[in-house]
Amino acid sequence: MRTGLGVDVHRLAEGVAMHCAGLSFPDEPRGLAGHSDGDVAAHAICDALLSAGGLGDLGSNFGTSEPAWAGADGIAFIAETVRRLRAAGWSPVNVSVQVIGERPRMAARRAEAEQVLGEAVGAPVSVSATTTDGLGLTGRGEGVAAIASCLIDDRGTAVR
Amino acid sequence: MRTGLGVDVHRLAEGVAMHCAGLSFPDEPRGLAGHSDGDVAAHAICDALLSAGGLGDLGSNFGTSEPAWAGADGIAFIAETVRRLRAAGWSPVNVSVQVIGERPRMAARRAEAEQVLGEAVGAPVSVSATTTDGLGLTGRGEGVAAIASCLIDDRGTAVR
Amino acid sequence: MRTGLGVDVHRLAEGVAMHCAGLSFPDEPRGLAGHSDGDVAAHAICDALLSAGGLGDLGSNFGTSEPAWAGADGIAFIAETVRRLRAAGWSPVNVSVQVIGERPRMAARRAEAEQVLGEAVGAPVSVSATTTDGLGLTGRGEGVAAIASCLIDDRGTAVR
Repeated sequence: MRTGLGVDVHRLAEGVAMHCAGLSFPDEPRGLAGHSDGDVAAHAICDALLSAGGLGDLGSNFGTSEPAWAGADGIAFIAETVRRLRAAGWSPVNVSVQVIGERPRMAARRAEAEQVLGEAVGAPVSVSATTTDGLGLTGRGEGVAAIASCLIDDRGTAVR
Repeated sequence: MRTGLGVDVHRLAEGVAMHCAGLSFPDEPRGLAGHSDGDVAAHAICDALLSAGGLGDLGSNFGTSEPAWAGADGIAFIAETVRRLRAAGWSPVNVSVQVIGERPRMAARRAEAEQVLGEAVGAPVSVSATTTDGLGLTGRGEGVAAIASCLIDDRGTAVR
Repeated sequence: MRTGLGVDVHRLAEGVAMHCAGLSFPDEPRGLAGHSDGDVAAHAICDALLSAGGLGDLGSNFGTSEPAWAGADGIAFIAETVRRLRAAGWSPVNVSVQVIGERPRMAARRAEAEQVLGEAVGAPVSVSATTTDGLGLTGRGEGVAAIASCLIDDRGTAVR
């Protein structure tokens, strides 16, 4: 069994669709900018899983040198991350991800996010959310952060 | 076995008592503001445990829609979190929490904090502290952050 | 098995050599200031391991009251941390550390960092890197952060 951790931050921008934790938030006035769909929660999950498996990080796997991944959505990144993890002999045990920011409001859609992310990971994914009391980059509404941790093991997919 | 992660940030305010990591710091000139006692370390621990167990987060369990929890202290949140975790079949294995900020100084009271938090969790809790070299929201003294990770398992309370 | 977490932040300063993740970056115009060599990744790893083992933190083990450690490099801190961890009956299982900042660029030297850190820890260490989209203390280039998580167990060194 191994653990991995990942953090991601994206800037909030006008005229960008909000994607977070595998969901679209069409009513949000601003979204998360990025080469991809800016889904900080999905990206933090990928970094946690890749790190646990010793497989590099988001940049080395899906970076700007890989044009096939430009504009890809967060779920696609997770699916490919898990494929590479399993190819290396590892299976996700569980993932815990926290969205840190004022927007989007995750509470009403937590169950939906956990289902979508859990299907992509193939193991339980817990989604939580918090704010930073108006402080820092997330409190000032400049961006949204996410932090994820995970456990993986090498017992194969049959166990899960 | 599952892992969970939680981050919390509260604003430092004049005229508020400082509560952190299950302890009171009566000599601190400022405290942590919040609906509750502002104990960032206790809140981060709750979020980590709830997330590990797939039980939502602090807001969904003890949020503003739950007036019974307004003003509750951090230890009460942890005790109820652990009760809900055990009711769901999970037991804490250990918790690691780090307080990030200039104040309060945890070093002299680490052992005391670890004992109080460990009794509330029913498993070992390690308390560490760091600063951010004068940078960011904690370095500027605007607030205090805490980050916690945990392991839980489903072997029941008898093992621990 | 237990988990531990550690965060560290150091200020970027002119005229200081850049040390990060166990490596020197002689071409970097700025380095990380600190009592030691400012290696945030190594320090985060130490705090994660010490916390997992219930052995305090970097400050209580190697703080300013311990002049023998003034100016020590990150690898020396890790080596002594692991020695103390093993003396307490614990062995590292794996470590995941993420460097958060604009500089230094870790991607080209990840394998090298993982080897150096892994030798010091005596278990696999994964190194990842991310930026914060120009936001916050790391995005503004004021400092560099690192966050590490680890697993340890009490099965002894022979298993690993």
